[in-house]
Amino acid sequence: MKHIAARALVGLAALGLATAASAQVKPEDMIKFRQSGYAFMAWNMGKIKAQVVDGAVPYDKAQVEAAANVIAAVANSGMGALYAPGTDQGKGWEKTRLKSAFFQQPDEVRKIAMNFVKQANALQAAAATGDPAAIKAQFGETGKACKACHEKFREEE
Amino acid sequence: MKHIAARALVGLAALGLATAASAQVKPEDMIKFRQSGYAFMAWNMGKIKAQVVDGAVPYDKAQVEAAANVIAAVANSGMGALYAPGTDQGKGWEKTRLKSAFFQQPDEVRKIAMNFVKQANALQAAAATGDPAAIKAQFGETGKACKACHEKFREEE
Repeated sequence: MKHIAARALVGLAALGLATAASAQVKPEDMIKFRQSGYAFMAWNMGKIKAQVVDGAVPYDKAQVEAAANVIAAVANSGMGALYAPGTDQGKGWEKTRLKSAFFQQPDEVRKIAMNFVKQANALQAAAATGDPAAIKAQFGETGKACKACHEKFREEE
Repeated sequence: MKHIAARALVGLAALGLATAASAQVKPEDMIKFRQSGYAFMAWNMGKIKAQVVDGAVPYDKAQVEAAANVIAAVANSGMGALYAPGTDQGKGWEKTRLKSAFFQQPDEVRKIAMNFVKQANALQAAAATGDPAAIKAQFGETGKACKACHEKFREEE
């Protein structure tokens, strides 16, 4: 039990839910920063997809590693701190699409967020191997982790 | 000479200037993605500043390392690919502030961009030491590298 509690605390810290690092960030900036993080990850997911899934661009190990490093770094940056209560309303770069359910289901949010961190770290590790097939497989898992959150906590456009 | 040429090529690749990884990204998405990258770095610079410069938030090694990892990963992500000719006009999340001088001074852009990558990597290394004074000093150098580009190539708001 103690072990589980300790792991949960580490998880909370990793997600930024228990930190004051961003205490002085305004709600509209929280929304802007998280929209920025997701958009920048999307660009980097797109590069990996083009190279190891679609084959639209020749595979380049250094580029895919750089892209996976971005995704892992953003995933580990404590974005939970950008989800202050009430920020399911408001505008960053654009109106937030966060559902209010996000604040009503903290256990589900934690589970989804921790899985995303895990999959992003695994994508970084896969990219370092230089094996396109392994990267492609882990790209799929990472995409599923993104989608799990979108389906539960993001409004359709 | 050969050595210098090789280094220049590595530099170009690191900056994404010589790659086709983002060949299919629309100009408005290029602007959006780069605005996202800079905004997300700004959030992370702010966290480091609060902890090792202002002291507004207690120093937490893991948080500062995570923030520095983001900055280094974004710096190394080949954002040069997001600067297609003509993208000094147009709108991403908002109207771009890129000056047309950016496309007229490629050598200066390269110098400034490579110094930014160097300083961001040094900030990541400083964060890993866990020495707040060393991080503070390198935070200053990184900020200067950001400012060098803003002063030459970004319009005032």
